Amino acid sequence: MKNFHTANPEMETAIDRSIPDFPAAQLSDEDKYFKHHKPPSYLPEIESEVKDFIEYHKSTSHKNIVLVTSGGTTVPLENNTVRFIDNFSAGTRGATSAEYFLENGYAVIFLHREFSLLPYSRHYSHTTNCFLDYMTEVNDKVEINPTFADEMLIVLRKYKQAKESNSLLLIPFTTVNQYLYTLRVISELLQLVGKKALFYLAAAVSDFFLPQSRMPTHKIQSQESGGKLEVNLDQVPKFLSRLVDNWAPSALIVSFKLETDRSILIKKAKTALERYQHQLVIGNLLQTRKKEVVFVRPQKDDDEQWIRLNDDQISSNVEIESLIIPQVIKVHEDWINGDN
Amino acid sequence: MKNFHTANPEMETAIDRSIPDFPAAQLSDEDKYFKHHKPPSYLPEIESEVKDFIEYHKSTSHKNIVLVTSGGTTVPLENNTVRFIDNFSAGTRGATSAEYFLENGYAVIFLHREFSLLPYSRHYSHTTNCFLDYMTEVNDKVEINPTFADEMLIVLRKYKQAKESNSLLLIPFTTVNQYLYTLRVISELLQLVGKKALFYLAAAVSDFFLPQSRMPTHKIQSQESGGKLEVNLDQVPKFLSRLVDNWAPSALIVSFKLETDRSILIKKAKTALERYQHQLVIGNLLQTRKKEVVFVRPQKDDDEQWIRLNDDQISSNVEIESLIIPQVIKVHEDWINGDN
Repeated sequence: MKNFHTANPEMETAIDRSIPDFPAAQLSDEDKYFKHHKPPSYLPEIESEVKDFIEYHKSTSHKNIVLVTSGGTTVPLENNTVRFIDNFSAGTRGATSAEYFLENGYAVIFLHREFSLLPYSRHYSHTTNCFLDYMTEVNDKVEINPTFADEMLIVLRKYKQAKESNSLLLIPFTTVNQYLYTLRVISELLQLVGKKALFYLAAAVSDFFLPQSRMPTHKIQSQESGGKLEVNLDQVPKFLSRLVDNWAPSALIVSFKLETDRSILIKKAKTALERYQHQLVIGNLLQTRKKEVVFVRPQKDDDEQWIRLNDDQISSNVEIESLIIPQVIKVHEDWINGDN
Repeated sequence: MKNFHTANPEMETAIDRSIPDFPAAQLSDEDKYFKHHKPPSYLPEIESEVKDFIEYHKSTSHKNIVLVTSGGTTVPLENNTVRFIDNFSAGTRGATSAEYFLENGYAVIFLHREFSLLPYSRHYSHTTNCFLDYMTEVNDKVEINPTFADEMLIVLRKYKQAKESNSLLLIPFTTVNQYLYTLRVISELLQLVGKKALFYLAAAVSDFFLPQSRMPTHKIQSQESGGKLEVNLDQVPKFLSRLVDNWAPSALIVSFKLETDRSILIKKAKTALERYQHQLVIGNLLQTRKKEVVFVRPQKDDDEQWIRLNDDQISSNVEIESLIIPQVIKVHEDWINGDN
């Protein structure tokens, strides 16, 4: 993975005064978004990496390919970004799911928030253990602390296996703008493998954004407007319909619905299915997301299928993604075989 | 360090209806803040850890103690926090500075945003290298990749030295509320060492916050208010004056001023000095902060002292903190000796 470091995306978000303020007639909200917002400068580089990856698996490994999105997008509030709105997500669902896709024979494009959890290394980062706590000095040499060595060997082998088989491609994003442009490019390239493409959209994408045309160049000063800060955000266009209709019409598309209020979860999942006409929504609650999720599918008799860890599984630290991914793969296999 | 994990601070931010909405007469904004916002539940545990640390250095090591704050605070926009406003900061300045304080004989309390960069481990995290890329398998054992082994040994020795001499205490925060409560507790405890305490406030603390009384319990729904999101934030009370006047009146206090507009940097630094009556503001620009900073002090002839890396230093990767910290320590020594 190249260093597309963009935690400070000042280079990407300069206002282009040449772009007219009035939209052309009959453009959809999604088209307008792309017309008025510049792509990240590194996009061609990503495009070429992703293309190589997909072509390799199409022609050589013949693996199915899943795009896993993971982590939260940011919405910068200033051009020289000091402040931004963020969506809470460490990337646990995405990173864990990616491992189980790899173990089940998929090639994985992992589109993730920079510095969020990654497959395999997640076991050693974002913990209260410092990196160096895994190390010890023996005879003037750094060695792995014996407490961790056996388990680390297992994880390292899986990681090297994924790398050596060219089955894992890491692509980072930070802002919602970078996410949307990158998602579009990858989706269009995934048309190369048709139904063998699976979208597993676990990223926490902002519903709102601040249009570049309204973004101040410099840091918002706290004495402005009487010491208060008022932020007015527009709704992010619903790109999922674009994904379903135009960008990746043959692929199986799985989206997530995260809520905090149990009483509206199923309804919101069904609304999403009706609106976007895709194949599967996995619903989950912030409070219980590591123990239960619900599969909601269009016009199925069993249209609400809960997947829950039982007490034994919880006490032996079974990860719920080890149950989710085989179920998703079954839906994908049916999709490929035309049984859907 | 215990696991005070609070990226999802739902437990900390429940609205307490027993707290009256009307403030008592004659309370300052700072006092009102603490009256209307609950402390994090883990605060007593931190208090006892910090107390032990300070007492050890007061009675046994006789080291000066610096509180380094580092990373950005978050402002939750919902009680079940999915969305929050964040301040951009990887924590590079704080983590790097902490290392040079340790090397110059200080004991360091490192009050940092959880998962931001830490002293020493910073060399191996937040890079595009995955943790596992530093490892290799040799004869069925995990070993450090030889490319990294020599340098890692040097870093590991410094880290172990800091730990074994009990000179580094890591204390995490996530929200601005957690930061403010923790800062107050640590400041009051640091009165134990009087002038030997140094505050090096490098964290990016939000100027604005959403009062708990106005915070929605559940995730903000995007269809509310016609698809727009309007966020109205209040100004965070200026706690620096409390720090200077009440919490730590004998300590030397160094604050940072980060701007993006060069033309207002010095003026804003001077305004801060006048308002809070502390001893040193280190000014820096987002764009050049790794190459130059400016020391601004009250009523000094040389009241703007720039510290800049020269070209040789830049090309040999000298860290500007290796120049900043000895200068700060000189100011602190003068302070202790009463030459200020």
